[in-house]
Amino acid sequence: MNPPQVLIVMGSDSDLPVMGEAAKVLTEFDVPFEMRISSAHRSPRRTGLLASEAEDRGVKVVIAGAGMAAHLAGVVAAETTLPVIGVPIGGGALNGVDALYSTVQMPGGIPVATMAIGRAGAKNAAILAVQILALADVSLAAKLKSYRAQMAQEVDEKDKQLNAGNAC
Amino acid sequence: MNPPQVLIVMGSDSDLPVMGEAAKVLTEFDVPFEMRISSAHRSPRRTGLLASEAEDRGVKVVIAGAGMAAHLAGVVAAETTLPVIGVPIGGGALNGVDALYSTVQMPGGIPVATMAIGRAGAKNAAILAVQILALADVSLAAKLKSYRAQMAQEVDEKDKQLNAGNAC
Amino acid sequence: MNPPQVLIVMGSDSDLPVMGEAAKVLTEFDVPFEMRISSAHRSPRRTGLLASEAEDRGVKVVIAGAGMAAHLAGVVAAETTLPVIGVPIGGGALNGVDALYSTVQMPGGIPVATMAIGRAGAKNAAILAVQILALADVSLAAKLKSYRAQMAQEVDEKDKQLNAGNAC
Amino acid sequence: MNPPQVLIVMGSDSDLPVMGEAAKVLTEFDVPFEMRISSAHRSPRRTGLLASEAEDRGVKVVIAGAGMAAHLAGVVAAETTLPVIGVPIGGGALNGVDALYSTVQMPGGIPVATMAIGRAGAKNAAILAVQILALADVSLAAKLKSYRAQMAQEVDEKDKQLNAGNAC
Amino acid sequence: MNPPQVLIVMGSDSDLPVMGEAAKVLTEFDVPFEMRISSAHRSPRRTGLLASEAEDRGVKVVIAGAGMAAHLAGVVAAETTLPVIGVPIGGGALNGVDALYSTVQMPGGIPVATMAIGRAGAKNAAILAVQILALADVSLAAKLKSYRAQMAQEVDEKDKQLNAGNAC
Amino acid sequence: MNPPQVLIVMGSDSDLPVMGEAAKVLTEFDVPFEMRISSAHRSPRRTGLLASEAEDRGVKVVIAGAGMAAHLAGVVAAETTLPVIGVPIGGGALNGVDALYSTVQMPGGIPVATMAIGRAGAKNAAILAVQILALADVSLAAKLKSYRAQMAQEVDEKDKQLNAGNAC
Amino acid sequence: MNPPQVLIVMGSDSDLPVMGEAAKVLTEFDVPFEMRISSAHRSPRRTGLLASEAEDRGVKVVIAGAGMAAHLAGVVAAETTLPVIGVPIGGGALNGVDALYSTVQMPGGIPVATMAIGRAGAKNAAILAVQILALADVSLAAKLKSYRAQMAQEVDEKDKQLNAGNAC
Amino acid sequence: MNPPQVLIVMGSDSDLPVMGEAAKVLTEFDVPFEMRISSAHRSPRRTGLLASEAEDRGVKVVIAGAGMAAHLAGVVAAETTLPVIGVPIGGGALNGVDALYSTVQMPGGIPVATMAIGRAGAKNAAILAVQILALADVSLAAKLKSYRAQMAQEVDEKDKQLNAGNAC
Repeated sequence: MNPPQVLIVMGSDSDLPVMGEAAKVLTEFDVPFEMRISSAHRSPRRTGLLASEAEDRGVKVVIAGAGMAAHLAGVVAAETTLPVIGVPIGGGALNGVDALYSTVQMPGGIPVATMAIGRAGAKNAAILAVQILALADVSLAAKLKSYRAQMAQEVDEKDKQLNAGNAC
Repeated sequence: MNPPQVLIVMGSDSDLPVMGEAAKVLTEFDVPFEMRISSAHRSPRRTGLLASEAEDRGVKVVIAGAGMAAHLAGVVAAETTLPVIGVPIGGGALNGVDALYSTVQMPGGIPVATMAIGRAGAKNAAILAVQILALADVSLAAKLKSYRAQMAQEVDEKDKQLNAGNAC
Repeated sequence: MNPPQVLIVMGSDSDLPVMGEAAKVLTEFDVPFEMRISSAHRSPRRTGLLASEAEDRGVKVVIAGAGMAAHLAGVVAAETTLPVIGVPIGGGALNGVDALYSTVQMPGGIPVATMAIGRAGAKNAAILAVQILALADVSLAAKLKSYRAQMAQEVDEKDKQLNAGNAC
Repeated sequence: MNPPQVLIVMGSDSDLPVMGEAAKVLTEFDVPFEMRISSAHRSPRRTGLLASEAEDRGVKVVIAGAGMAAHLAGVVAAETTLPVIGVPIGGGALNGVDALYSTVQMPGGIPVATMAIGRAGAKNAAILAVQILALADVSLAAKLKSYRAQMAQEVDEKDKQLNAGNAC
Repeated sequence: MNPPQVLIVMGSDSDLPVMGEAAKVLTEFDVPFEMRISSAHRSPRRTGLLASEAEDRGVKVVIAGAGMAAHLAGVVAAETTLPVIGVPIGGGALNGVDALYSTVQMPGGIPVATMAIGRAGAKNAAILAVQILALADVSLAAKLKSYRAQMAQEVDEKDKQLNAGNAC
Repeated sequence: MNPPQVLIVMGSDSDLPVMGEAAKVLTEFDVPFEMRISSAHRSPRRTGLLASEAEDRGVKVVIAGAGMAAHLAGVVAAETTLPVIGVPIGGGALNGVDALYSTVQMPGGIPVATMAIGRAGAKNAAILAVQILALADVSLAAKLKSYRAQMAQEVDEKDKQLNAGNAC
Repeated sequence: MNPPQVLIVMGSDSDLPVMGEAAKVLTEFDVPFEMRISSAHRSPRRTGLLASEAEDRGVKVVIAGAGMAAHLAGVVAAETTLPVIGVPIGGGALNGVDALYSTVQMPGGIPVATMAIGRAGAKNAAILAVQILALADVSLAAKLKSYRAQMAQEVDEKDKQLNAGNAC
Repeated sequence: MNPPQVLIVMGSDSDLPVMGEAAKVLTEFDVPFEMRISSAHRSPRRTGLLASEAEDRGVKVVIAGAGMAAHLAGVVAAETTLPVIGVPIGGGALNGVDALYSTVQMPGGIPVATMAIGRAGAKNAAILAVQILALADVSLAAKLKSYRAQMAQEVDEKDKQLNAGNAC
């Protein structure tokens, strides 16, 4: 099997239903990826190693998802110069605003490419990872363009269905 | 001169003091870039063309900064499959929370890699762009690592200065 | 059939239950309208065309509803000088505050007439559209006045029902 | 002098610097307007009369601006079936979020076309009023289109100025 | 039957489950009250009359509950110099923050005594009304003191129950 | 001198510029009042005594102003059955939203009549106190009505001034 | 039985499901504790006594949990110099943001060690209490270290389970 | 010199004006402390070491202050079982709400004792540290009690000054 190009990390297995959206997209694009559970707070050194060794293992992009005071993406970004994409996960008292602020408001020097809260964010994290990888992979770039075209077509079909009844 | 690898777009020239932080970082890394003013709302077609033609002109990453109902990054992302980095710009009544939500809460399908509000975000947008470009450019990857090391060293020096007086 | 005077656009068919409230009101007022699905991000050019051609097709008012980073109303407003009414749609992690800010905080130059989040907003969007059309249509103006009178009467009846038991 | 087509109401003379932006735009478009101070709370009956008599005096669109618990636009909308545009005014402890929520979250039945907080909102209120009036006034419609074109051109010029230095 | 000393107004019959909490407390204190439905927006003149005539009908305190852009308490307060207590009602997209801001952020001159969002607020509105009436009614003042003592005792009993199992 | 009918308490002398607005209004209405500094946290027992002894000293209404986690009004309300009016004071990192929530969100049983954040709230607290006292004081009730009429007249004059230039 | 080292106070028995999380952790660490119901508002003097006598009864750390305008932790902290840990409890209209601000935004002088909203916060309150007690108790310090190690191991096991299927 | 009992860490020297408030209090209480600059993101390993070695160096309590996506306190807490006190620092676009959420919303297992945003929080962090140390230090406990008494007295004096003019 090919070495993973994308590393998906999440703080807890309870984040799997959300982060699974990223896995689905990467599978659809045939991008090899690895999915790992590691916590910024409960297993900080393991998380640090996972991040710092990622580049040497061939990883090109890291996706990190966490909820509440979501430090995971920032902690990973501090240990690698690979692009790190952060997915704020909701579901708690603050509905993910805490996770969003904790992920996106990174001080100057260490960026985290932050996505929307929850499933839409996890899906987009994977698409962004593909967009990044596609810069050096023409076949992936082509797949992206047909993926985009298909989305536009689906909108068109939904619109036609909605107006089908009005035609007669 | 080399063709720009990064396209920085902003909605208005009043965004220059913020987005200039991105330009500074790209200059520091010797990454050729182009800086453009184009509005999602006041010049939508021009903005659409700027985005859709960017890839053919050799651009690899787009950085888009805007304030208030900041649609610029999303509108650009809708017209290209290049990675698009969004910088929410504050300064209005809502201090940039409006720009943050308008930039980061993209629905599934079209990601915008969102940075912190304001100058820190603009600086990090450029660093992320460099991180993405460095995946295919070993010299840039090396520069990133020394940039990172230098940041750590500056922290160390600040710490030493703070504690210098205590030594005697 | 008469050409549509109001164009209702929504970003996704999942917005139908909300935007259907607008359709109900327009039907009640016998205002011909068209309901379309088109996304600011997944089908940007189609959306641009829908907006820019609306006036020539006889449309007088556009109603646009979207959720999350709701760019739809702003993107439509950028392509037409017809009045554009925006309906922020909730239901996501941020309960529609993201959609509200993305719709209402339009920078100077391109207005979007923003309604309340969700069903109340969709209903009011249609009433506002009728109010605009009624400026040039005395029969519609008369209908509006009786609609208003009926609302007042319903309040009166609810009040009487509540206090009916106390009378004896 | 022509009877006013637009009535601008504000709750206090301290709102003049903001609401003056609306007056500027209407003047630019040669739309006759009237500017009045009347408070929803301190002079409720006067405000009610102003609203309920507006239509008979020839007013087509009302613009209402207020801050804090901004009831003015809603109170005006309750007394007329003319389109009412609300401008939330900031500057207090909550920076206008209170005024925004008080203006936009109207319950179903009585719409207020809400604009952005502050000056941008006041300017856009006037543009929206012009867009509404232009539905029945081809010369106004033409002015709107050239106003729009001019905005696009200004963006273009700002962009050229920014890149002028780079040309040599 | 005694004339009502407290007038409870609500904008819609959907507010009854919340405002019923106020009625319960007033019944418990044997304070005669009247419960009315009247909308600030859908029946503004009726609401104005209800407020302006309340004092002459012997009402001492008005309680007004409404949701969303909750103008009701402010509109009532503008038409009477009786103390007006406002209850923000939640349940919509913004969970009552809109109703809270619309009720509490009254500009200088016209106060609304604002309570917590929802049922706790409705209950407290009635207690505050009793506290106000008790200033001129020693028997009511005595009832208030025993009501307060009973609350303290209930806390004590709950505490004893919790720790009962630990005693053996 | 008459015993104070209103007790104004504030947590710190830094709250004087805000709470002084309440004093001004009470002075204007010739209502005897007392102004005290006492902290819910730094001098809790003193605050408890001030509240519990107020009624015996002839106080009818308490106004309490505090910032940040503003417990003062609630702590006072817990020690008296007099009506307690709370003024949230802004100026800190959260602009008074913390003080607003800490003051208004009282659980069922112990109401605090909450006013707007800052000076407008302090002014309104005094007006509400006067409204409460006026229930048993016809001369105060008359003063309130002329105060209200004067406010309406001031609005009228401001409006006339604004439109004076247009008359010629 | 040993005298309690930790006092857990909550404002109402409805807070038990949340505060029970703290009890579970203290039981797990064999730290003797006492769980009490006492309200800052409905039984203020009882709460004051509970706090002021705690130190003499051998209590070392107090944990206080409350919802809405959560004054309990602050009121307790005002009556003791023991460390006081506050747990904001959600579930109301504002989802605990009110309780968070009311607990954490203590003015200078009287600290409350604030935890996350809800169950995670209650659990962490107990762990923090153990961390404080462990400063003077080597056996507790050792238990803490193995508790920490166990958490890290659980993350490791979850990660292995997730990736077990991929091994074959 | 005595080994430090409290370690104050901050992410940047720009945090010194805020965190200096903590140093002042510790100096006032004669508690030996150390003040260090170390960033969670720019110098993660250094920060990890600082935290993990603190206990062996005799540190009893750690105070960590940071702004924006303030991961510092959480990252330190993950590397030590000493009590960690977090100070959210404001000043950016979100006024410290981002730092507050990032510090306080720690998931179950790793507590951070969170203080108010800014200077009040830094001061209280030091007082809490003293309260913790005082559990095993009777002289410190005595100092705390007189510090508390002095605060109460200062309130009393401020109150007397305010009312001094009224006495004559």
